[in-house]
Amino acid sequence: MNKKELTALILKKKSFLCIGLDTDIDKIPAFLKETYDDPVFEFNRMIIDATIDFAVAYKPNLAFYECNGKKGWESLEKTINYLSGHQGGPVFTIADAKRADIGNSSIYYARTFLENLNFDAVTVNPYMGKDSVEPFLQFPGKWAVILALTSNSGAHDFQVLQPQLPLLLEKFGIKTCYWKKFYEVVMEESMKWGSTDNIMYVVGATQADMLGSVRELVPEHFFLIPGVGVQGGSLEAIAAKAMNKDVGILVNSSRGIIFASEGEDFEDKARLAALALKKKMERILQGRSMI
Amino acid sequence: MNKKELTALILKKKSFLCIGLDTDIDKIPAFLKETYDDPVFEFNRMIIDATIDFAVAYKPNLAFYECNGKKGWESLEKTINYLSGHQGGPVFTIADAKRADIGNSSIYYARTFLENLNFDAVTVNPYMGKDSVEPFLQFPGKWAVILALTSNSGAHDFQVLQPQLPLLLEKFGIKTCYWKKFYEVVMEESMKWGSTDNIMYVVGATQADMLGSVRELVPEHFFLIPGVGVQGGSLEAIAAKAMNKDVGILVNSSRGIIFASEGEDFEDKARLAALALKKKMERILQGRSMI
Repeated sequence: MNKKELTALILKKKSFLCIGLDTDIDKIPAFLKETYDDPVFEFNRMIIDATIDFAVAYKPNLAFYECNGKKGWESLEKTINYLSGHQGGPVFTIADAKRADIGNSSIYYARTFLENLNFDAVTVNPYMGKDSVEPFLQFPGKWAVILALTSNSGAHDFQVLQPQLPLLLEKFGIKTCYWKKFYEVVMEESMKWGSTDNIMYVVGATQADMLGSVRELVPEHFFLIPGVGVQGGSLEAIAAKAMNKDVGILVNSSRGIIFASEGEDFEDKARLAALALKKKMERILQGRSMI
Repeated sequence: MNKKELTALILKKKSFLCIGLDTDIDKIPAFLKETYDDPVFEFNRMIIDATIDFAVAYKPNLAFYECNGKKGWESLEKTINYLSGHQGGPVFTIADAKRADIGNSSIYYARTFLENLNFDAVTVNPYMGKDSVEPFLQFPGKWAVILALTSNSGAHDFQVLQPQLPLLLEKFGIKTCYWKKFYEVVMEESMKWGSTDNIMYVVGATQADMLGSVRELVPEHFFLIPGVGVQGGSLEAIAAKAMNKDVGILVNSSRGIIFASEGEDFEDKARLAALALKKKMERILQGRSMI
């Protein structure tokens, strides 16, 4: 799915909602574990059925599958196959794996997610640089979603670092003028490795004060924006700052939807939570005369 | 295994060799694929048997297991179990997974590798900061091996970045004095999150010119040093620059050992390649009067 097709899908579904399938086996309703041999997949299947009318993308986070070992891997395989063949589709699928390694090894991560499992996209950590990311850019119609400015507190440890003036310069009374933050360097540099059809960026909704400047710096690329809901970001503020002429954003909600209820009504509550976000998104798109 | 125990094991085995089990199913001898249902595990088993006399650590790289799906996960489980119960042990085991996510998700990655699979250590990517790394530091006797300065060409994209003097300052004729490189900031900051008993750093052998200054900056921590052999680093140069009073280094070789031969003699050739490195290491330890 290229950028044009993704935008068209968003406008058709009147939603830029991505649902994070962070399916923690300890949080899914107990009856599923008593009833099914693969409760993680069954939970995902029911969540997908309940929400696919309102979502344009799904994003399983690998941490919650790997912790169940080979059984978890099986749940993941069944989930991506279910999504790929769903009559409510197509949807955009993202493996939230945050992988990257030296080029020789990254090739195998890329094949795993973009070829074997056939996800549309995979999240990629940029710390190891160009040769660690490039293998993810070799699959036509597939995407690397590069971590830029993440939604967690640790984003403040390195991503927003700016050069410090050494004491020597302070002695001269010289103030900083413009100094790039580290995530800005990451975005500017990594933009050169691919195109707006195969690179997206993770930009956390919790960093709303920086979203506007990120969009100025990277006008054309899609952003995958986590951190709405449980993590606290506001949808309207995000849209105002981060949307572009192609919509340009996928907004992710995970726990706020899939664990809206931990009881037997979890599908209904998930559907309602997804619908509420979809309605807000539809209004935002209407407000911009995009639909 | 704490730092003291790891040092003792190195001195006992007269080796600081880590063998990378980058078991690419397309590169293992054909007869294994014809003979065994799980050729990846059987290859690992034979490599381990052939080399455990000379190695102090083993490091499977997850990329090569994930690409085989749930079957790959099974090979990994069998490999770590085989290592844990080996009569030639104990050995230090590292899951080269390069994981990290927001704290809520990183917990599951940490459990996967340090609890469920029971590795001694897991490689961790620091880009997402403190809350993404801390979950890996909660297991007594277990380690996070944080990527600092990696061995690949992409290390030069972000890790070695230094602040650039803006033009304004150049106009004043002011030269840079000391400016920290990004990986130095990462090391200095992340050192505060744990201790020398639960944090190690990846420092690539291919960056030999920087190894000395890294050791000055981080005097007490163990370094996991990849990049010897196929990637080109020299063992003597590394040891001279990076060893400390506790030995303080694990030097990894992957392809140079496990794919020393792709024929039926692969075990013998792997053993010889491991022995050659072990002998060099023994001489280095003797030269420093450590054994």
